[in-house]
Amino acid sequence: MTADRSNTLSPLFHPTSLAIIGASNDAARIGGRPLQYTRDAGFAGRIYPINPNRELVQGLPAFDNITDVPEPVDTAIIAVPAASVVETAEACAAAGVKAAVIFSAGFAEMGESGRQQQAALSNIAHSSGMRIVGPNCLGVYNAEHGFFGTFTSTIEAGWPKPGTVGLVSQSGAYGSHLSLLATLRGIGIRFWLTTGNECDVDVAETIGWLAQQAGVSVIVAYAEGISDRDRFFAALVLAHQQGKPVIFQKVGRTGVGAAAVRSHTASLAGADAVYDGVFRQFGVYRARDTEEMLDVAYAASFGILPASRRIGLMSISGGVGVQMADEAVERGLEVTPMSAVAQTRLKALLPFASPRNPVDITAQAFNNLELVGANLNVMLEEKTYDSIVAFFTFVAAAKAMVGPISETLRLAKEAHPSCLLILSIVGPKEVVSRYEESGCPVFEDPTRAVRAVDALSRFSEAFARRAPSMTIAGQSETHLPPSPISEVVAKRLLSDAGLPVVNERVCVTADEAVAAAIELGLPVALKIASPDIVHKTEFGGVELALNTTTDVRNAFVAVTGRTKMAHPEARLEGVLVSPMVTGGVETIFGVQDDPTFGPVVMFGLGGIFVETLNDVSFRVAPFDEEEAHRMMRELQGFGVLDGARGLPRCDLDALASALAALSRFAAQHSGQLESAELNPVVALPAGQGLIGLDAVIVAKA
Amino acid sequence: MTADRSNTLSPLFHPTSLAIIGASNDAARIGGRPLQYTRDAGFAGRIYPINPNRELVQGLPAFDNITDVPEPVDTAIIAVPAASVVETAEACAAAGVKAAVIFSAGFAEMGESGRQQQAALSNIAHSSGMRIVGPNCLGVYNAEHGFFGTFTSTIEAGWPKPGTVGLVSQSGAYGSHLSLLATLRGIGIRFWLTTGNECDVDVAETIGWLAQQAGVSVIVAYAEGISDRDRFFAALVLAHQQGKPVIFQKVGRTGVGAAAVRSHTASLAGADAVYDGVFRQFGVYRARDTEEMLDVAYAASFGILPASRRIGLMSISGGVGVQMADEAVERGLEVTPMSAVAQTRLKALLPFASPRNPVDITAQAFNNLELVGANLNVMLEEKTYDSIVAFFTFVAAAKAMVGPISETLRLAKEAHPSCLLILSIVGPKEVVSRYEESGCPVFEDPTRAVRAVDALSRFSEAFARRAPSMTIAGQSETHLPPSPISEVVAKRLLSDAGLPVVNERVCVTADEAVAAAIELGLPVALKIASPDIVHKTEFGGVELALNTTTDVRNAFVAVTGRTKMAHPEARLEGVLVSPMVTGGVETIFGVQDDPTFGPVVMFGLGGIFVETLNDVSFRVAPFDEEEAHRMMRELQGFGVLDGARGLPRCDLDALASALAALSRFAAQHSGQLESAELNPVVALPAGQGLIGLDAVIVAKA
Repeated sequence: MTADRSNTLSPLFHPTSLAIIGASNDAARIGGRPLQYTRDAGFAGRIYPINPNRELVQGLPAFDNITDVPEPVDTAIIAVPAASVVETAEACAAAGVKAAVIFSAGFAEMGESGRQQQAALSNIAHSSGMRIVGPNCLGVYNAEHGFFGTFTSTIEAGWPKPGTVGLVSQSGAYGSHLSLLATLRGIGIRFWLTTGNECDVDVAETIGWLAQQAGVSVIVAYAEGISDRDRFFAALVLAHQQGKPVIFQKVGRTGVGAAAVRSHTASLAGADAVYDGVFRQFGVYRARDTEEMLDVAYAASFGILPASRRIGLMSISGGVGVQMADEAVERGLEVTPMSAVAQTRLKALLPFASPRNPVDITAQAFNNLELVGANLNVMLEEKTYDSIVAFFTFVAAAKAMVGPISETLRLAKEAHPSCLLILSIVGPKEVVSRYEESGCPVFEDPTRAVRAVDALSRFSEAFARRAPSMTIAGQSETHLPPSPISEVVAKRLLSDAGLPVVNERVCVTADEAVAAAIELGLPVALKIASPDIVHKTEFGGVELALNTTTDVRNAFVAVTGRTKMAHPEARLEGVLVSPMVTGGVETIFGVQDDPTFGPVVMFGLGGIFVETLNDVSFRVAPFDEEEAHRMMRELQGFGVLDGARGLPRCDLDALASALAALSRFAAQHSGQLESAELNPVVALPAGQGLIGLDAVIVAKA
Repeated sequence: MTADRSNTLSPLFHPTSLAIIGASNDAARIGGRPLQYTRDAGFAGRIYPINPNRELVQGLPAFDNITDVPEPVDTAIIAVPAASVVETAEACAAAGVKAAVIFSAGFAEMGESGRQQQAALSNIAHSSGMRIVGPNCLGVYNAEHGFFGTFTSTIEAGWPKPGTVGLVSQSGAYGSHLSLLATLRGIGIRFWLTTGNECDVDVAETIGWLAQQAGVSVIVAYAEGISDRDRFFAALVLAHQQGKPVIFQKVGRTGVGAAAVRSHTASLAGADAVYDGVFRQFGVYRARDTEEMLDVAYAASFGILPASRRIGLMSISGGVGVQMADEAVERGLEVTPMSAVAQTRLKALLPFASPRNPVDITAQAFNNLELVGANLNVMLEEKTYDSIVAFFTFVAAAKAMVGPISETLRLAKEAHPSCLLILSIVGPKEVVSRYEESGCPVFEDPTRAVRAVDALSRFSEAFARRAPSMTIAGQSETHLPPSPISEVVAKRLLSDAGLPVVNERVCVTADEAVAAAIELGLPVALKIASPDIVHKTEFGGVELALNTTTDVRNAFVAVTGRTKMAHPEARLEGVLVSPMVTGGVETIFGVQDDPTFGPVVMFGLGGIFVETLNDVSFRVAPFDEEEAHRMMRELQGFGVLDGARGLPRCDLDALASALAALSRFAAQHSGQLESAELNPVVALPAGQGLIGLDAVIVAKA
């Protein structure tokens, strides 16, 4: 179920004819609110209340049944008791309704019989082609067309303004909370959908539809998990192609959180760290919380994504300048100093200013308003900064200031349209709006403004790359051998896939082992080779650092002897003889079959410290070398590979190439592969490559 | 200059007679605002405008000079040009003014002559006893008494309400910004002071004064650095004794930030990580940014610090419940599940609820308001949770809800007064106030509410401990030997101080070395001993893992020979013979002489990974074993010591004891010690202690 049917969502969001089944005269009831909201909002389409007990509902002629409606219905709201929902949905499908929105709860979230009812709804959707939203959802709105097919009471706090944000939330209550906060903050949500139990329409597909709407420039999504990987990826690729930021909140980062997700939904959540990898891979910004999600959406809705991480900071308080600089540096933004020439210019304008960056113009600058503009222009004319955050707090909110300062900003924006200029101002809503109209996002908190710059920079970096592709040219038809796969075979498979594994020999006699040791060069390691034995060290199946041929001969006898004692039933392939590898940095390559995302590749540094810190990164297979480079750079301990503290830099290109190769191998064997691990992989200094010393591949049963 | 003179600040904050020197008729000018504000606020004391050019200022009789005022003046505001400030201050001191607040800028922040003028002000303060605030500050206010000795225009946005928060900020602009935000949010700032250039009164002393005021329950402080360590510590101990939370923002966390601090102030900032250690040691909460600082102050002002980290989470949205749980777990709060009995009770009340914790009551609970209270009571009656965060968003803000829900909350608070109950509600100010009046802090954002719980838990943990003491019983009079101090002597000094160092012998002949090796047990290490050689490995001054007496003899000859080649001038003490230590975890103990805080002890894990991650913690010397335990637990990699991944747990008590011993050694030699390092210190499994393998002590010249 991965074909893109998302164009079929258009009637849902843009109905010309709307039926409300279970329409109520009481505007406070679930079946009354969408009718009242939609009429009050000036919806231009036709509305057909369905209620067999009334002639009129809220003054409109009511119909007994969906079949009585005199024209084809685009969207039907279903607000009837759970027991009647399936039959109502069937009637809608039979009547040619294009989309049904089911408010009613009592389905998969309520146990087995609910699950069966929900499955029946899925069948109706799939067999008839009628799209179904919900059940157990709070509906949909299109703020531009005045269509409010929802019973959320947040609408009473103010009409959402039809801006350029599209929002989709699995949770109705949370989606309503977001709609309210956005409206209060002046963030314009054009399209809003809550998907509830997702018997048909899901968050992923809705992202894809939003990505294709001309009126949407930013997509905000909330989900507790993703069920259809391919649909999700297709949607994200669409958003990437359109250059539309996707801000995603996926809860359940911690064990407790994930358990709580399971307790209140039926959705299957993959490992949370894998989501981190997926979001990075597709250029999606993962918001940790509500505030961050709306901050980034708000800033993104101004349509400027800074082309670099170089940020200029201007402040009327030195202390806040430092606060912003601290946050910027910790987020990886570059607080590049002003040029010497510009610093001199600033000092000439304001002798008391700190001109370096952060630029502290002090509140005194506001005694002569031209100075504010002049200072700003000096910063802009550097053409160094693709974003500037200016902290003006209440000083710029004084009545006398708003006109001239916002005009100054408008002119500055006109001259430097690609620079993202964010203001930090504390003032009443009307003042904030004036500044927003000059093209500048306004944050009360300067630190949050800096965080938003970081987020927008990530989007521009992601959009500068190709969208990830999940297909591999010339996909191999090879099949994995049956389980168990021995270390020897695992290494051969990975070596064939382009991964460098240690050069070793399988020897079945002591003489062969000695000959191999001489060929490979002493010292060597010996290790028993058997598909039936995974843990080889414990019983003495491994001997390391053998320096002489006598040692090798003795070790062969000892290792095979101990193996026969410990594992009398094991099939033996012989003894592996391999050169000892010294130096380099130990890394770990892994593949897991994620229940949601299929084969994902894991990369980390070896050693107890990093295992304790859980410092690993993930990507969905397959990916290319560039993505592998980014994946490596996500490790906290990346410095260890990158030549920190005077160590040699490791062969990063070789690492990237091997990770990409492993990802192709994983993707080619998707469905067959349970897990794979190459551990340790010793990364040698630049130019010297890397060596995988041990490998395990587990095929699916 | 560390005596506690902070009682002398009382006239500054509580003047009965106030002079404004440079008083202006124009209420928009710097000399006009404090007069107008203070009169409008209904100040009950006498106000004396000083202005030789006018008979009346803003309707009040004006005086030519401070000496003309007919009564002793408590506080004089000085708002005159910089050039006249020193002479004006002298006149005030001569007239017996108790405190002067100098608004004027143009002192230490403006170069050498400004610095001299400021030094003159310091001299006036110290010789006369008149306290001086500033120069270059925005003044002071006492919201309770209607005294507004400030020219910040933020007062025009609304009168600060006299709550229980005391605020002191080095920065005037930032202090004003904070005052405004606090006022807009309903946080009552009773006392407010900006200290500017701090020629006399500083942030530290003000914290001490605020700690002693009955009307203050929470202290908020901002500074770019601390200048007087002892005054600062004394103030923090006062706050600790009074159980008053101190929330401190110290900017300059990053290199760029710290450079920006230096560029706009003269304050000497110690290494930022040392501040982290100091704040933790004294139970101060370090706020990263403005929002966090005010969030914590706001929550703390309700007067309940949760006695444990066990948090209950209630939500009308499952997704938000998970969001809160994620944040709580990541902050180290315990999202303890409800008991089975309580879960059954909840399920009986609300069959659709998720009763575990987070408790998801869904928005449907609000259809029957009694259910909200019943659910809350089930949680409270568990007596498991010392804090509960309830996410009710807009649902609880509906007009019909506010009365009954706030009454429910009031009753719940009455029955369970020690439980911190925080609400997350989105609603207009008057609704929020109603809920606040029931005794519950209200946050719009649920994640920020959870963060505040973490902060308040830290305070209750800190207040449950003894306040840190910086004195050592029986302080030794011993002096360090003169530099350079050899490794042998360094180890003896640290061993005498109670630190376990490796058992080794200084040998001057090969025979002695062999005898020592036999005594200590083979294998051994040999290392050249000389006060003049620090780096011994590079030229071959060290040989490790010597397994036989022959190896020892050969190594003795080789090491001494290579040393004579490489360092012909070095004084030699002999060769150190020590047993090889295997196993255990390498740690690093260090002492630095911090420019602000004096001797500070550093602890970290050895190894390249952790060096790359900069995973170290600091404490000011001296401290006790309990503090050392907390210090160790701050490391990200603490799990390595604590038996992560099946490794043996290290001897944590021995580590704590040794760190405390090192801290006493450092404190006893404060002023003499430049730095010390014991590295590596091998921490052995529990019960087996630890061994310091190498030591360096550098005495001050």
